Amino acid sequence: MDLHILDHRLRVTSISKSGLVDYTHPLIKLIFLRNRTRCKFFSLTETPENYTVVLDEEGFKELQPSQRLQVESSVWLPLNVVSNGNASSSSQAVGVTKIAKSVIAPLARQHVSVFMLSTYQTDFILVREKDLSVVVSSLEEEFNIYREVAGESVPVRSQDVRNGLHKNGKEAIQPTVHPVLVPQNQFCVMSLDPDTLPSIATTLIDVLFYSSSPKDGGELSAAPELDCIKFFSFSLIDGYVSLVMDTEAQRQFPADLLFTSSSGELWRMVRIGGQPLGFDECGIVAQISQPLADSDISAYYISTFSFDHALIQTRSSIPVSSLCDPHPCWEGIVTVCHYDKLQ
Amino acid sequence: MDLHILDHRLRVTSISKSGLVDYTHPLIKLIFLRNRTRCKFFSLTETPENYTVVLDEEGFKELQPSQRLQVESSVWLPLNVVSNGNASSSSQAVGVTKIAKSVIAPLARQHVSVFMLSTYQTDFILVREKDLSVVVSSLEEEFNIYREVAGESVPVRSQDVRNGLHKNGKEAIQPTVHPVLVPQNQFCVMSLDPDTLPSIATTLIDVLFYSSSPKDGGELSAAPELDCIKFFSFSLIDGYVSLVMDTEAQRQFPADLLFTSSSGELWRMVRIGGQPLGFDECGIVAQISQPLADSDISAYYISTFSFDHALIQTRSSIPVSSLCDPHPCWEGIVTVCHYDKLQ
Repeated sequence: MDLHILDHRLRVTSISKSGLVDYTHPLIKLIFLRNRTRCKFFSLTETPENYTVVLDEEGFKELQPSQRLQVESSVWLPLNVVSNGNASSSSQAVGVTKIAKSVIAPLARQHVSVFMLSTYQTDFILVREKDLSVVVSSLEEEFNIYREVAGESVPVRSQDVRNGLHKNGKEAIQPTVHPVLVPQNQFCVMSLDPDTLPSIATTLIDVLFYSSSPKDGGELSAAPELDCIKFFSFSLIDGYVSLVMDTEAQRQFPADLLFTSSSGELWRMVRIGGQPLGFDECGIVAQISQPLADSDISAYYISTFSFDHALIQTRSSIPVSSLCDPHPCWEGIVTVCHYDKLQ
Repeated sequence: MDLHILDHRLRVTSISKSGLVDYTHPLIKLIFLRNRTRCKFFSLTETPENYTVVLDEEGFKELQPSQRLQVESSVWLPLNVVSNGNASSSSQAVGVTKIAKSVIAPLARQHVSVFMLSTYQTDFILVREKDLSVVVSSLEEEFNIYREVAGESVPVRSQDVRNGLHKNGKEAIQPTVHPVLVPQNQFCVMSLDPDTLPSIATTLIDVLFYSSSPKDGGELSAAPELDCIKFFSFSLIDGYVSLVMDTEAQRQFPADLLFTSSSGELWRMVRIGGQPLGFDECGIVAQISQPLADSDISAYYISTFSFDHALIQTRSSIPVSSLCDPHPCWEGIVTVCHYDKLQ
């Protein structure tokens, strides 16, 4: 298999809930007006805590510094695994499950922090630019590694990149046990033809920027569903649109424009972290994806500024609800705190 | 004819050019998300100086006070003339020309300031709430006057409203002579089905909020056409959409959604005022509309925070270009300063 180091230098930022008003102008530009910006990698995820915005340096220039914008100090590079057809994979699973053993586990062993961003199209593994040499040396046995430079794929070997392995690279990991939440809402992972993005503009703007405003100028209509989490993710990366939303948000969009995989699967969320996770702890994605990979359960994985989110097949042979027992595959790895008894 | 005092209490505000970014969030809500606001009267006009926003008190609540928002201190009420079919009018002209003699001139004689807002559908004559009694007594001879209250039209007579005529009401007007500009661009006055507003959302957002951003992330493309003025007006009033834009902006919109009068007329602009006009001088609209009415030339009239704008039929028998001679009908009323020789 091939691993590509994509030609985007990314920043990971967070806009506070109250700060969204200040950043509506640049965000709408980045989402809808592609001919007004050179940004090629943009992702916006709303969680109950804040808005996580991951974007390349061209996009980052659009965000004026303010107290309501937090910026992780590193430059992150997105990695992308390309199945070139030669590799035989017994797994039918999709998402982070597919790369759990080949990418996520080796990086965790080398104490490399990763920031995951699954989309409809693919899974981006973001690593810090300064960790690149460790990344390459950790993965070059398994992968042909290429660095994309101005549209060209240039082969990379570990002697090409500075620095060696971290000196503590071989120590065993003592994973921190993080509590998880399993909200009741079900999610879908969707896409649409980027040329039809204008057709859903007002709906998307409504959902992204005004979902906390009262409707009909009155009071906030119903209280948010108990046991449900607010989570909406939009990304526009190299011209491809990906949307992750729950079924309630989905109902607001015209059914004929958004598409999902033919199976139309729904996903349950496992939110990882009782306290904000930060960016320095390694192995979190590995802890979650490993048991899923062992059981061949498909999962998407979306990191945000504060917490991580795995989206797990609801139709998997091991039902998500069993996580709350917890299922043996999670034992010793996570403590399952759920809002309520799952059906 | 009937004159209706509409059931909207309006504020006239101005957002500075640099302040637009701060007000993008509420403005987009007011323009596109009707189910999120109780605002029923909204108008936004971009001029080279600023953005004039006229809106009712429900809409005004959405605008956070800041140094970049100027607010005229009065409450304004919109008047609207309704031809009830009985009145015989020899004029075929539309717009402010039609009401020049019956409304504009009498109010000017009574020293009542008016703020004009022509739209595709009708012409709103905004007067200060405190001037209402003078307005009613000045116009009740010519009109049946109704005040709209909660959907009902209630007849109004001058004894119903407090205060009499201004004591200086009968003095002769010594009109101030204002310079005017006649830019080269041609304008159209358009509308669209409000249900199709989402279809033009990204284009409208682009034109309204990003026209000063460089395209393709590069430098600002061409310098604005010499001798042309930036002027774009959008209004959403009681569910009706009206747009005034020049032919260059028009080209950005899909041709099949916006409609104009069957004649598809274009209009030339006469901008009144070398220095900001303020809100206290009376008779400006009268000075401009009187000679147009005398010659039966159709004209729209849009007041903004700083300047007034008349839009005059290009196909009128007296060509606009003759204004620069100046045409006899303007003599003694305006000094014509034009950017360049008109063709």
